[in-house]
Amino acid sequence: MDDITENVAIDAWVKAFSRSRAQANAPHEADAELIELSGAPGQLLAITIDTVAEEIEAGLYSDPYTMGWVTAMASLSDLAAVGAEPLGVVVSASVPAGCDPALVEGIGRGIEDACRSLGVHVLGGDSNATPAISLTGCAVGLVPEDEVITRRGLAVGDALFLTGPCGTGNALGLARLGGLPNEFYPEARYRPSARLAAGRNLRGRATACMDTSDGVLATLDQLMRLNGHGFEIPCDWSRLIDASVLAFCDETGTPAWMMLAGPHGEFELAFTVAACDEEDLSLVAGDWPTRPIRIGTVQERPAITLVLGSGRRADIDMAPLRNLLDTAGGDFTRYLREFKELGSAWKLDEQS
Amino acid sequence: MDDITENVAIDAWVKAFSRSRAQANAPHEADAELIELSGAPGQLLAITIDTVAEEIEAGLYSDPYTMGWVTAMASLSDLAAVGAEPLGVVVSASVPAGCDPALVEGIGRGIEDACRSLGVHVLGGDSNATPAISLTGCAVGLVPEDEVITRRGLAVGDALFLTGPCGTGNALGLARLGGLPNEFYPEARYRPSARLAAGRNLRGRATACMDTSDGVLATLDQLMRLNGHGFEIPCDWSRLIDASVLAFCDETGTPAWMMLAGPHGEFELAFTVAACDEEDLSLVAGDWPTRPIRIGTVQERPAITLVLGSGRRADIDMAPLRNLLDTAGGDFTRYLREFKELGSAWKLDEQS
Repeated sequence: MDDITENVAIDAWVKAFSRSRAQANAPHEADAELIELSGAPGQLLAITIDTVAEEIEAGLYSDPYTMGWVTAMASLSDLAAVGAEPLGVVVSASVPAGCDPALVEGIGRGIEDACRSLGVHVLGGDSNATPAISLTGCAVGLVPEDEVITRRGLAVGDALFLTGPCGTGNALGLARLGGLPNEFYPEARYRPSARLAAGRNLRGRATACMDTSDGVLATLDQLMRLNGHGFEIPCDWSRLIDASVLAFCDETGTPAWMMLAGPHGEFELAFTVAACDEEDLSLVAGDWPTRPIRIGTVQERPAITLVLGSGRRADIDMAPLRNLLDTAGGDFTRYLREFKELGSAWKLDEQS
Repeated sequence: MDDITENVAIDAWVKAFSRSRAQANAPHEADAELIELSGAPGQLLAITIDTVAEEIEAGLYSDPYTMGWVTAMASLSDLAAVGAEPLGVVVSASVPAGCDPALVEGIGRGIEDACRSLGVHVLGGDSNATPAISLTGCAVGLVPEDEVITRRGLAVGDALFLTGPCGTGNALGLARLGGLPNEFYPEARYRPSARLAAGRNLRGRATACMDTSDGVLATLDQLMRLNGHGFEIPCDWSRLIDASVLAFCDETGTPAWMMLAGPHGEFELAFTVAACDEEDLSLVAGDWPTRPIRIGTVQERPAITLVLGSGRRADIDMAPLRNLLDTAGGDFTRYLREFKELGSAWKLDEQS
C-alpha cells in the first residue's frame, strides 16, 4: 500500500484521527465510510465526501453542467460500490463572487439532472465565494450490514467484472490536457453514471468492489494491494474500452492502454464474484442499464497480468504511473511524456 | 426573507433541485437537513455541510489548528441546533500542492481536538490539491422525529435564551480585518464549541433554535423572518457579550454592539422556550458546560427591539448590515466603514 503516494497521504490524515468504535470499515477498505446505526439494527449508514476542484483547475471540465454532474455522481458512485441505497446528497458549492449567474445555474442543473437520473434528491448544502470553483458532494445512504460490499474479500479463482466498458474519463482528460479541440472528445459525451442498481444487486454476491473513478488499472492495482492477490486479464481492448473511446484512439493515434491506465476514470464498478456465482450474476444483471463484462480472473500472485493475443503475458506495474501526478508536480507536459514512456515499456502495442 | 441577499442566493440553489418526499424540513427552516430513515422508525437523519474558505482567504484564521477546529465545530453546531446525536464527521481538505506538512498536521489536529472534545469521530474524507485552502466538514447524526428542533415554532411570550455569552467571533474578525496585532485578540482564544449537550436537552423543549455562527443579531433576524415575530431584548452588554470580548472593546474603543451585529459568530445556540418551561430548563441545564442566559422575550411585532437603560426602545434593522458583505463586494475597508455608519445610527452608545 505504501508504494502509492496517495495511500501514504491518506494515511497521514487517518493517523491524525481516532477511530469510532461504531465504524464498520478500516481505512482504504471501502469506497464509502460505514457506520453502525443505533436504532436501526442490521443497517449501516454509508457516507462519502468528494471534492471536484483539481479537474476544473486542470481544464478537464469547462462546462458548469459537467462540473455539477460529476460532483453528484462521484459521491453516489461510492454508495454504489458498497451496495448502499441513497438517502440523498448535500453539496457545498464555492464559486467566485460576482460570477456569471449561468455558472451557478449550470452547476445546479448538472447536479439535479445527475441526481434525478438515479431517483436521488439534493437535501441541502452550503455556498461560498472563493477565487476558484470548488464543488463538494456528500452522499449518504443505507446498506444491510450482512450484505455490505467492501474492497476486500476476493479469493483466487473469482471472476473479475466491470459493469460496463471504460475509458471515457481518460479520453476526456487526454483530449483536454493534450489541447485537442473539443470535437475530438466532446465534454458533453462525458456523462458517467453511478451504478446504483448494480451495487444493490451485488450485495451479498460481490466478493470485492470499487468504482473506476481513478481509472480502471489504478482501481485494480488498489484492489490487488488491499487483497494480496492480483488479476489475469485477457488484453482485448474492444471488451474493456468504450467504442467511442476506441474511435478517439484510432483518430488521434493514442495507444488504447492509456484509456485504462490514466487517472481520470468514470463511475463503472470493478467487482469480483465467486466463479460459482457467475450464472446467478447474469440473471440479476438483466435490470442493469449496462451489461456486466467479464474481464479476467483473480490470480494468487499480486500482479496485474495482461495476456496478449500472441500469448505473451505482461505484468504491468501501476505504481510509477499512479505516483506520477505527484512526481510531475502539476507539470502536465512532463506528466504526459513520462506517462507514455512508462506505459510504452509494457509493449502492449501489438494489441491496440 | 427576500430582503436578505443570502436568502435569495440560497433560494436560487434550492430552486434548481427537486425535493425528496422523505425530507422533514423546508428550506431555511432548520440548521441541518432532516431525512426520514426507512428501517429506523421515529428517527430522523440530520446532515449538514459547511465549507471554511472565505474566513481563511480574508485572513481571519492564520493558524491551521483554528481552520481545522472551526471546520469540525461548524458542522457539529448545526447538529446541536436540531437536537441531533452525532454519528460522526467526514471532511474534505483541499490544500496547496507541496505545502508545508505542518499545515496538514495542524488542520488535522484542530479537527481531531474539536471532535474529541465532544466525543465525536472523523469517519473519513477526501483530500485535494488546490491553490487556496478550503475545508469542508459534513456532520451526520440522529434525532427522534417527535422531538426534533427547527428554526420555526416560537410563540409570542416565549423566553429567548443564548447557551452562553457571545461576540468572540466578531472580536476575532474585527481585530484581524482592522489589522490589529494578534495580542489584541489572540486567534488561539477563538475556540468556539458546538453545544451538543444543550441541543440534546432542548429536544421537545425549545420552540425554535438556531446557532449563532452568523453573529447573534443576524441569527435573531433570521428567526424573526422565519417565524413572523420579533424579540424584545434588554440591552445589557455584560449579559450578552463574553467578558474577554468586552475587555477587547474597552481596550480598542470598539462599540460593543458590533460584537453582536457582525457576521462572524461562534457556536452558541439562540433558542426560545415557552415561558412556563423556563424552570424546567434551568433544571436540565445543570449539565451544560455553560449557563443558559435569558436575553429577552418573543414579541408579536416582527422587529428586534433593544430596550436601553434610559428606557428608550430602539428597533434595529439588520437587513442592510447582513447584505453589506455583498454590497461592499469584498472591500473590507468599505465594509467596516459602512458597517459602523449603519450601526451608529441605532444610537446604542449610551449603553456601552
